[in-house]
Amino acid sequence: MGIEIERKFLVRGEGWRQGEGRYLCQAYLSRDPARTVRVRIDGQQAFLTIKGLTAGATRAEFEYAIPVADAKALLSLADGPCVEKFRHRLPAGGLVWEIDEFLGANAPLVVAEIELPSEDHPFDRPDWLGEEVTQDTRYFNSALAARPYSRWQASSG
Amino acid sequence: MGIEIERKFLVRGEGWRQGEGRYLCQAYLSRDPARTVRVRIDGQQAFLTIKGLTAGATRAEFEYAIPVADAKALLSLADGPCVEKFRHRLPAGGLVWEIDEFLGANAPLVVAEIELPSEDHPFDRPDWLGEEVTQDTRYFNSALAARPYSRWQASSG
Repeated sequence: MGIEIERKFLVRGEGWRQGEGRYLCQAYLSRDPARTVRVRIDGQQAFLTIKGLTAGATRAEFEYAIPVADAKALLSLADGPCVEKFRHRLPAGGLVWEIDEFLGANAPLVVAEIELPSEDHPFDRPDWLGEEVTQDTRYFNSALAARPYSRWQASSG
Repeated sequence: MGIEIERKFLVRGEGWRQGEGRYLCQAYLSRDPARTVRVRIDGQQAFLTIKGLTAGATRAEFEYAIPVADAKALLSLADGPCVEKFRHRLPAGGLVWEIDEFLGANAPLVVAEIELPSEDHPFDRPDWLGEEVTQDTRYFNSALAARPYSRWQASSG
């Protein structure tokens, strides 16, 4: 069991880009925000991750490594298609920005996340950092699985 | 990944009873039959189990051991209360009857299950075996979590 304290931001421009990132593919066995169940394939590793409700920027998180072959089979049980992205890691003063460059139906969305040791932990805001969207449930990856970014304009004007 | 081939029956009388059985407590992170996600505590062990749709008596099943402390925390995220039961194991000619004696809101339901190596594998039917309910989704444990046996008469007459 763990607690995840994470803040999420939109990104401006390309100033964050360094290298290629690594490819992640993830899908959901439950998209219920009270009990999200995610299958993720990350190269030669795979994980089953359960998250509870978000309170502020904090969320209970449980993660288990599983065989990649299991994960591939579990993706076929998932509710909706894989959310695909390149994940870029940018170390920043003891913390790490994880920048997700979404692919497929969620392109061209780019989101930056920072995991914090406590909710009030300070962090520097790089030039490329845009609007905070920590509380905006549309940007939950589980929500992007059901309602991908490329279709937002069509339904919300 | 595994495939579970299981048939389920009601039980008549007490002829099956030998000893006390062991106590199981389980709850669901997803009750969707296409992607059931179950947390089970079984004494000093705990498991996270994912099952797909049932086709006949066959169902895809993925099971992972997890720490009991995680399982206890995951139960608090679950959709509905714990389904509680005593499980009794009765070996029978190379196979095993698992007899679930439900407690709490699902008492006095008793159900016998047998796991088979193939759908057409023969098995003896003991005297105490009642009607087959393999296909009856009301007896899915995930359904019993949401609509416990003690409330069936009130809603279905």
